[in-house]
Amino acid sequence: MTHVVVTDIVRADLEIARALAEFGSATVHEALGRAGYAGPRIRPIQQGVRISGTAVTVQAAPGDNLMVHAAIEQAHDGDVIVVVPTTESPFGFIGDLMATQMQRRGVRGYVTSGGVRDSQELRAMGFPAWTAEVSAQGTVKDTAGSVNVPIVLGGAVVEPGDIVVADDDGVTIVPRERAAEALEASQARAAKEAANRVRFEAGEISMDLNNLRPVLADLGVQYVTQAEFEETHDRR
Amino acid sequence: MTHVVVTDIVRADLEIARALAEFGSATVHEALGRAGYAGPRIRPIQQGVRISGTAVTVQAAPGDNLMVHAAIEQAHDGDVIVVVPTTESPFGFIGDLMATQMQRRGVRGYVTSGGVRDSQELRAMGFPAWTAEVSAQGTVKDTAGSVNVPIVLGGAVVEPGDIVVADDDGVTIVPRERAAEALEASQARAAKEAANRVRFEAGEISMDLNNLRPVLADLGVQYVTQAEFEETHDRR
Amino acid sequence: MTHVVVTDIVRADLEIARALAEFGSATVHEALGRAGYAGPRIRPIQQGVRISGTAVTVQAAPGDNLMVHAAIEQAHDGDVIVVVPTTESPFGFIGDLMATQMQRRGVRGYVTSGGVRDSQELRAMGFPAWTAEVSAQGTVKDTAGSVNVPIVLGGAVVEPGDIVVADDDGVTIVPRERAAEALEASQARAAKEAANRVRFEAGEISMDLNNLRPVLADLGVQYVTQAEFEETHDRR
Amino acid sequence: MTHVVVTDIVRADLEIARALAEFGSATVHEALGRAGYAGPRIRPIQQGVRISGTAVTVQAAPGDNLMVHAAIEQAHDGDVIVVVPTTESPFGFIGDLMATQMQRRGVRGYVTSGGVRDSQELRAMGFPAWTAEVSAQGTVKDTAGSVNVPIVLGGAVVEPGDIVVADDDGVTIVPRERAAEALEASQARAAKEAANRVRFEAGEISMDLNNLRPVLADLGVQYVTQAEFEETHDRR
Amino acid sequence: MTHVVVTDIVRADLEIARALAEFGSATVHEALGRAGYAGPRIRPIQQGVRISGTAVTVQAAPGDNLMVHAAIEQAHDGDVIVVVPTTESPFGFIGDLMATQMQRRGVRGYVTSGGVRDSQELRAMGFPAWTAEVSAQGTVKDTAGSVNVPIVLGGAVVEPGDIVVADDDGVTIVPRERAAEALEASQARAAKEAANRVRFEAGEISMDLNNLRPVLADLGVQYVTQAEFEETHDRR
Amino acid sequence: MTHVVVTDIVRADLEIARALAEFGSATVHEALGRAGYAGPRIRPIQQGVRISGTAVTVQAAPGDNLMVHAAIEQAHDGDVIVVVPTTESPFGFIGDLMATQMQRRGVRGYVTSGGVRDSQELRAMGFPAWTAEVSAQGTVKDTAGSVNVPIVLGGAVVEPGDIVVADDDGVTIVPRERAAEALEASQARAAKEAANRVRFEAGEISMDLNNLRPVLADLGVQYVTQAEFEETHDRR
Repeated sequence: MTHVVVTDIVRADLEIARALAEFGSATVHEALGRAGYAGPRIRPIQQGVRISGTAVTVQAAPGDNLMVHAAIEQAHDGDVIVVVPTTESPFGFIGDLMATQMQRRGVRGYVTSGGVRDSQELRAMGFPAWTAEVSAQGTVKDTAGSVNVPIVLGGAVVEPGDIVVADDDGVTIVPRERAAEALEASQARAAKEAANRVRFEAGEISMDLNNLRPVLADLGVQYVTQAEFEETHDRR
Repeated sequence: MTHVVVTDIVRADLEIARALAEFGSATVHEALGRAGYAGPRIRPIQQGVRISGTAVTVQAAPGDNLMVHAAIEQAHDGDVIVVVPTTESPFGFIGDLMATQMQRRGVRGYVTSGGVRDSQELRAMGFPAWTAEVSAQGTVKDTAGSVNVPIVLGGAVVEPGDIVVADDDGVTIVPRERAAEALEASQARAAKEAANRVRFEAGEISMDLNNLRPVLADLGVQYVTQAEFEETHDRR
Repeated sequence: MTHVVVTDIVRADLEIARALAEFGSATVHEALGRAGYAGPRIRPIQQGVRISGTAVTVQAAPGDNLMVHAAIEQAHDGDVIVVVPTTESPFGFIGDLMATQMQRRGVRGYVTSGGVRDSQELRAMGFPAWTAEVSAQGTVKDTAGSVNVPIVLGGAVVEPGDIVVADDDGVTIVPRERAAEALEASQARAAKEAANRVRFEAGEISMDLNNLRPVLADLGVQYVTQAEFEETHDRR
Repeated sequence: MTHVVVTDIVRADLEIARALAEFGSATVHEALGRAGYAGPRIRPIQQGVRISGTAVTVQAAPGDNLMVHAAIEQAHDGDVIVVVPTTESPFGFIGDLMATQMQRRGVRGYVTSGGVRDSQELRAMGFPAWTAEVSAQGTVKDTAGSVNVPIVLGGAVVEPGDIVVADDDGVTIVPRERAAEALEASQARAAKEAANRVRFEAGEISMDLNNLRPVLADLGVQYVTQAEFEETHDRR
Repeated sequence: MTHVVVTDIVRADLEIARALAEFGSATVHEALGRAGYAGPRIRPIQQGVRISGTAVTVQAAPGDNLMVHAAIEQAHDGDVIVVVPTTESPFGFIGDLMATQMQRRGVRGYVTSGGVRDSQELRAMGFPAWTAEVSAQGTVKDTAGSVNVPIVLGGAVVEPGDIVVADDDGVTIVPRERAAEALEASQARAAKEAANRVRFEAGEISMDLNNLRPVLADLGVQYVTQAEFEETHDRR
Repeated sequence: MTHVVVTDIVRADLEIARALAEFGSATVHEALGRAGYAGPRIRPIQQGVRISGTAVTVQAAPGDNLMVHAAIEQAHDGDVIVVVPTTESPFGFIGDLMATQMQRRGVRGYVTSGGVRDSQELRAMGFPAWTAEVSAQGTVKDTAGSVNVPIVLGGAVVEPGDIVVADDDGVTIVPRERAAEALEASQARAAKEAANRVRFEAGEISMDLNNLRPVLADLGVQYVTQAEFEETHDRR
């Protein structure tokens, strides 16, 4: 297997990449037709931060951050660096020194199915990270990997230049060629949700708004009293 | 299997349900004779919030929140909605729109062995949740389940109308018919702990207060010097 | 097996033990030659707290905190109590009453591969803890164990008197006899990192500072354009 | 909390308890309306063994098998001993000596969310076990628990005298008062499956037998060619 | 999101698909340049079976096997059905009745990140399966999904028509367009390994055959006596 | 950190090392006073094999088997190679080629908290392995580690030359200096168990043999009828 660093990737439209942060990982995931969510194992180390940006991808050896160094050189303003070790790897692949380099280059955040260290410092310097593990365990710089090749992050495929949307609910990946569609659908969804929120605050409920009574009836769900329930159901 | 929504459940005494919040999940669990704790997998998404209320229970299909919508209609002021999917199910079963409906009806919180989404918004709106997972993954509304039937939440059985006590240590379930006993025992326990706390702050230790020296002696635990230890113990 | 409480352990130099807190678990772990880290399963219940101290060790039965009571009596100002149940044991081995005793005796923190309860109170009283689990589940006081014998905490061996360094990244153990070496190496490492941080903030990158280009070349990593990549690589 | 050994439990009908073994855990679980399955964490230590019997239940302290000794004395011919420690507890609660006692009394098998040891000997002596863990770790006999009280095994409630059905797919619990219903429904289900099996072996498929085409159509699932798919779907 | 069943997928060359079974998941994974392995969570339910075939892919809702029924109709002789629920889903998605249909159509095996039931029957009828879970838990047929779209199985992307190689070590996916390359590289690797095996059986070791002494020397690994080790290394 | 290969380790007495295999991991663990068990995560890939031997230890980088090659050269007849990666590492560190070398040198088995591959071949060639993972994932040979230094395997410390006892229950480590004590205690324990087994087969039970009735009485466990139980206990 040849390992490569791809140097001239095409990024998603920067305006769209920026605009998606407003909607967050859950709304954008819905807007894509319930796709692109990387799963609940990738968690933020901070609270209340919502970012988006274009992916610089890294395939790393477990416990080896050599290729992350190489990725920093390829990163531009507005990027998010996404690092996937070949297997689960609870190491601190980056700490505050690497975060300093990333922040200096305009990188908006770091996402990994491996781990990070110096979590207190990262929070203090305002550099957000989403990670499977926080770990002080140190890495080496001995093994080849690749930068800007397609990777699998949890349940999502990430190609270089895709959009990464991350917040307290985790990380959603928007394929580059679906960026415009995702933004439009997110805006539509947010508008509809805002309208519904007003009605819910006024006391309406989704059973009516979403017309769920016929669904329950079709599925044979019965409304019964406690007495009726105990008559027809034995214990458990 | 017939799926049902039970519409007229008997709730535990509301005054007691409210009063138990003060003591928290650990003290109430102890007061029940070390029972009712749902286990450490059900975690709060916020910090420093302590609630209690009466359970509206939901048995849901994994990744399907249809029955949670039905449960909201059955919920009263002072309730806690408790949702158990048939198996582990890291989906965002509810987000801020459903929380808005719950909050509007006076529901005090949401407890689940599944997952929630919009965690940042839930914290912002002050609607507390305890959950096995935070996940942006969206659900469907396709499959029947039941509302207000007995369910198993982690290691605890929850019957509709039972009391739910939840805080930073997790969730404890108080059977409806043990509510008064739980309150009385919690008060007694808290009083005793307050008295002990004063003595511990003054420098006494539990070895004396709890009379543990004879216990250790009975079990054959020996007090030795490092030199004696090394003489009689090989490595490890 | 005889169970013992060793009463006169030799502690690491107190000045050094105190001084190591400044550097944190990751730096000290690196300073030891990437050793001593207890692993990512032992997590803080609070954020932004950094401590160090000398270990009082406890080998406990699962779900039984008898020996923790015994350990408190052996603890001095500047100690950290480290408790390892024989197997994974998600119980609340200590709560605010035991923390009160520890705090009164000058114990700086509590570290365990078991669990703690009253997490909200522990945070409120400023007594820091690192733990595998937060759990309201109560323990008994029935089973013998030992105090101040060697234990295995995650991936690290802890001997009584060793130094415990704990912060948001987890827990690192410094063998007593390596204390001076660890401090010196931590200081050197911190100084070097500070110098590098200045250069990174000025725009330099680790690819240059760490001279990583020859490493990549030696490993055969190739820099290619997207077009070259697609020519030579099939999908995936 | 008072700990008890209940000495005169009512067992499910022995003939029915025996007859259910033939159908296995999956069919019986379906026959109960998809209920009673203890979940996939409780696994057999042997292959190809299918048993059923009446439950003698044990609530044990973690790592403490005292109450299992007490349960053996309460066990009759045709029973299955079911042991649930208060929390996950990967100890060898029983080995071949305890299995010898059980086998001598006609106990048909052992089920636990804790662990067993001497797994090779258990297989050799033909005493089947279902367990969350195989572990050589030894237990103590120090802590009170209860025999023949209701317990929670994985996702299932077990009351003493309930029927336990166990095979390579795991363990299903049949409430005592649903025993006759479970047998009848299992027989009906097995008969229907046998008829379907003949038709499937002859080449028919469930899309036709179960009339699933309208279901797919109602859900809006579209049959498309690869060319149509690529036209309308972007990558992913 | 539109759900689809793609009806005319292009499959990898059948001769190659068949030929790869001989080499097994580990060798083929190596032959692809250490790629395509689905990870250690997908395990065989039988021992000593090695298969390969072309993928019919299924994206299913958790706990819902509707789309597996649809996939069976699309399956040909020589296929392997690969089913990925949207999230972890420990249900028995298929049992012996569905396996009967698959076997009748020439399907060589079943691979899933969900679960299977009737594991004893599947082994008895010689229909092999690789799965994350064995579970008696029953599924429903209520929710839309897709057949023959790209899916993510553990760490591997599977496109319809790709080759699936499965044995006791797990599952490796060969992209359709790399089939010939994979076969050729597997044959070369197997030949080389056979030659080395002869030399190893004769007493040679890989330190010599692979010329590893200079690698160790370059990395600074030192050969020392126990006495030298103890002189230069403190405890741990 | 200097990495070393220690070349002249002192091994435990070979006769004792061999003799301990007969007793198995559970009995020897008990004989050591319930010590030395590596925990339930390290599982055999075969069934019914019981070995013992002297440890050659390896500290490896995750996903890197370089030091295992170095360890083979240090291994003698009667050794067991024990490999611990710095963190959890589900890779196939060894396969049949490395097992061939080990077997040729008289190595009795392989134990690891990482992973193995070619599991079918290892079983076929009769080379036993105990491992946390079976994985086809390939390793590299890039990173330094050490051979014959102390390591932590699950919950047990292993020093080079210690005795490794492994069977279907997992792996127990006997410190070299406790070898004679372990053998003697194992023999005594086995003799006692044999005597008890005869009495259990004759119908006696451990409640009598172990004199457990007073223990239960002291702990306050009460024998009650079902009627008494229901009178004094509310639900749950």
